[in-house]
Amino acid sequence: VIQVDRRYRFSASHRLHVAALDEAQNDALFGKCNNPFGHGHNYEIEVSVAGPIDVRTGRAVDVNRLDSLVESAVVSRYDHRYLNEELPEFEHTVPTTENLGVQIRQRLQDGWDEAFPEGQPRLERIRIFETDRNIFEIAAYE
Amino acid sequence: VIQVDRRYRFSASHRLHVAALDEAQNDALFGKCNNPFGHGHNYEIEVSVAGPIDVRTGRAVDVNRLDSLVESAVVSRYDHRYLNEELPEFEHTVPTTENLGVQIRQRLQDGWDEAFPEGQPRLERIRIFETDRNIFEIAAYE
Amino acid sequence: VIQVDRRYRFSASHRLHVAALDEAQNDALFGKCNNPFGHGHNYEIEVSVAGPIDVRTGRAVDVNRLDSLVESAVVSRYDHRYLNEELPEFEHTVPTTENLGVQIRQRLQDGWDEAFPEGQPRLERIRIFETDRNIFEIAAYE
Amino acid sequence: VIQVDRRYRFSASHRLHVAALDEAQNDALFGKCNNPFGHGHNYEIEVSVAGPIDVRTGRAVDVNRLDSLVESAVVSRYDHRYLNEELPEFEHTVPTTENLGVQIRQRLQDGWDEAFPEGQPRLERIRIFETDRNIFEIAAYE
Amino acid sequence: VIQVDRRYRFSASHRLHVAALDEAQNDALFGKCNNPFGHGHNYEIEVSVAGPIDVRTGRAVDVNRLDSLVESAVVSRYDHRYLNEELPEFEHTVPTTENLGVQIRQRLQDGWDEAFPEGQPRLERIRIFETDRNIFEIAAYE
Amino acid sequence: VIQVDRRYRFSASHRLHVAALDEAQNDALFGKCNNPFGHGHNYEIEVSVAGPIDVRTGRAVDVNRLDSLVESAVVSRYDHRYLNEELPEFEHTVPTTENLGVQIRQRLQDGWDEAFPEGQPRLERIRIFETDRNIFEIAAYE
Repeated sequence: VIQVDRRYRFSASHRLHVAALDEAQNDALFGKCNNPFGHGHNYEIEVSVAGPIDVRTGRAVDVNRLDSLVESAVVSRYDHRYLNEELPEFEHTVPTTENLGVQIRQRLQDGWDEAFPEGQPRLERIRIFETDRNIFEIAAYE
Repeated sequence: VIQVDRRYRFSASHRLHVAALDEAQNDALFGKCNNPFGHGHNYEIEVSVAGPIDVRTGRAVDVNRLDSLVESAVVSRYDHRYLNEELPEFEHTVPTTENLGVQIRQRLQDGWDEAFPEGQPRLERIRIFETDRNIFEIAAYE
Repeated sequence: VIQVDRRYRFSASHRLHVAALDEAQNDALFGKCNNPFGHGHNYEIEVSVAGPIDVRTGRAVDVNRLDSLVESAVVSRYDHRYLNEELPEFEHTVPTTENLGVQIRQRLQDGWDEAFPEGQPRLERIRIFETDRNIFEIAAYE
Repeated sequence: VIQVDRRYRFSASHRLHVAALDEAQNDALFGKCNNPFGHGHNYEIEVSVAGPIDVRTGRAVDVNRLDSLVESAVVSRYDHRYLNEELPEFEHTVPTTENLGVQIRQRLQDGWDEAFPEGQPRLERIRIFETDRNIFEIAAYE
Repeated sequence: VIQVDRRYRFSASHRLHVAALDEAQNDALFGKCNNPFGHGHNYEIEVSVAGPIDVRTGRAVDVNRLDSLVESAVVSRYDHRYLNEELPEFEHTVPTTENLGVQIRQRLQDGWDEAFPEGQPRLERIRIFETDRNIFEIAAYE
Repeated sequence: VIQVDRRYRFSASHRLHVAALDEAQNDALFGKCNNPFGHGHNYEIEVSVAGPIDVRTGRAVDVNRLDSLVESAVVSRYDHRYLNEELPEFEHTVPTTENLGVQIRQRLQDGWDEAFPEGQPRLERIRIFETDRNIFEIAAYE
C-alpha cells in the first residue's frame, strides 16, 4: 500500500463572521478576519489517497480521474469565489478553513464511487494550506 | 553600496472590473478575476533599498525604521481588506496588482523622508508576489 | 476532529558537545557541529493541535491563545539565544535538536491548561525544521 | 521516541510504458509520460527514522551512518540515470514513482542492519517528491 | 513601466555530450551529466515582460496571450521530451540549459509580434531554474 | 551572454555589537541581535557569474571550478563558525550580513584569476539570504 499526495490551488476570499454574535464578540473571536468586506488567500489543498500498487500499471491511483474529480468537485467550485456570498454551503455556516475542509471532504466523498468504481484507491485525508504557516488537516474517516 | 531586500506579507481580496466597460468586455479582459464578489490572495511584497554600508554600524539600512514605515504605510493599510470597497485609491481605479504596486511605491516614497531624514538608504524597487508564479516589479525611479 | 498546524520561527545558535567525552569522541560524534564557538540555524517549529470544530465559531482552536502560548513559552525563550550558555535546561544537556524538541514539548504542555482551560484542543506533536532538509518530529503523548 | 526526517536529492529520467499493453492502452494510461524517449525529474526523497534519544549523545540517529547508507544504496544508484535502461530492477517493471519507492525501501532495509548494528533507529517511511505537487509515501512496515 | 514575471513548468530529460570530443573529454567536461542515457529535471521558466500600465485595464500585459504563447512555443514543445533525441534544434547542439535558454528566447521572440500586435509589452528576459539551486538568466536583447 | 546563478549554504552564528559604542547604543542599534552570546542562521548564498556560451561545450561557466572556488574560499571558511570569535576579518569589524557580503566578494575576487585563468566568466554579484525574508545583494564591480 502506498499513499499518493497531490496538491491543487485556488484563490478565494472569505469573511469570518457569526451572525448570532454581536460586533464585539465577533471582533474578539476573529479580529481583522471579521472585516466586513472579507479578505483573501491563495489556498493550496493536498488530497491524499492510498491503495495497493497495480502490478500491471505500477500505479496506485489513476491520476487523471483524481485530477478530474478534484477539479470538478472542488477547484472549479471555489476558485475565484467569495465564499460567504456565492456558496450556499456557507450561507449559514462561517467559512473558516476548518469548515471549508469539511465541505471539501464531503464533496470528494460524494463523487468518489463514480470516479473510482473499482473501489480503489481510498481517500485518506485532506490538508489545506491557508498560508504556508497555517495548515489544516482532516482525516477522510474518523 | 549594497542592496537590502526585505519581504512582508498581507492577505487581501480584489475584483478586476472596469466600470466603463460592459460585462462582455470585462469578462474577455479579466475572466474569472471579474467575479462580482472578488477573490483573494496572500500577497508578499519585497521592498528593496540600497545605500553605502555605515562603517560604524556595519549596516546599510536601519531595518527598524524600514519595518515601521512598511507596516504603517502598506501592511496595516491593505492587510485583510477588500481593495475595491475599502480603499479610496481604488474607488475609480481597478485594483490590479500593477496598480497596487504603483500605490505601494507612492506610499513608501511619501513617508521616506520622515523615516530616513539623513537621506539614506534609497528606495530601489518594489516586487509583489500575487502568487509564487505571478510576480510584479516596479522601479522606484524610472 | 481536525488538526491545525501552525508554524513559528526563531534564530539561535548551539554547540554539540558532551562534557563527559574527550575531544576525539566529540569530534567523531558531532564533527563540525562540535566547533567550540557554536554555530546557528533559522529554526522553524510547527505546533500541531487537534480538536472538534466548535459549531458556533467554526474553529477548532483559538489561534490567539495558541500564538500567545508559543510566543511566551518557546519563541521568546529561544530566539536570538546561544542555547548552550544562556538556557539552564542545556547546562548539563547537549542542545541537539532532539533535546530541544523535548524541551519545547514540555514547555507547551506545562502552559497548556492555563492557555486552554476548557480542555480543547489537544497538543498532538511538534516538528522542528533545523534546516529544510533536516526535520525532527516528536509526538505530544507517546 | 523521536522521528527524524532527512531529505536527499537526485535527478533521473524515466518512461512510463508497459510492454504487455499496446500503444493505445499505454497512451490512455500514461499520456505524455509514455513518450518513447522518456522525460525527467528532480526527485527529492525524505527518509524518516525513529528511535529513542540516546541520553549520552542527545541524538536519536547517527546521521553520518544514515547519510552514508542513503548515498550508497539510493542516491549513487539512481542519480543521473535513465531508470528504464540502466537499472536491472526496472527491466521488467515500469519505473513509476510508486515502484521506485518500493525499490528504495527495499534497498534501505537490505543495508539497515549493517549500517545500524545496534538495532537503532528504525526505518519508518519513505516519501518521494516527484515534483513539489506530486508526492508518494510508503511505510517501512505494513 | 512595470515588469511582470510569470513562471511555467515542464519536465524533460537531456544528456550533455559533445560528439566532436572523445569519451575522456566529455567525462571531464560533464561528469555524470554525460551519462549515455540522459537524466531529467523539473524545469521552471520565468518569462519577464515589461510595459506601461494600460490606464483603462490597469494591466501591463494581457496574460492570456502571454500564457498562450509560452504554452504553444515552449511548454508543449519541451514538456516530457528527451531533448537530445526529439528536438531538431538539439540534433547538433548540446542541450545545456544555456542553449535551451537561447532556444526559448528565440521561440518567444519569433511568436511575439503575432501574440502582441500592438507592440506591448516587451520581452525582457528569461530565467530557467534547472533545479532551485542552479539558475540561468538570459536577457531578451543584449 | 548568459548569467548563471548557483546557490550554496552554510550555517553560522554572529553577534551584532560595536565595541566603540556603549551598551544602550548597541541595544538601540541592534536589539536582540546584540545578545552577548550570539545567535545563528542558515545562510544561503547565490553567486552570479556571466559570460558568453562556449560554442563547443554549450556552457557559460565551468561549474566544477566555480563550486571548488566557492567551497574553498567561502563555505569551508564560514560553515559552522561563530563569525565574531573565529574569523580574523571580524575581529574589529561587526559581522553584519552586509560586511559578510563584502568579505565573500573579496575572497571570490581574490581567487578568481586562478580558478578561471582564461578570464571567463565574470563575477557579477553575490546575494546572501540571511533568512528567506531578509536578503542582501552586492554587485561585484560598482
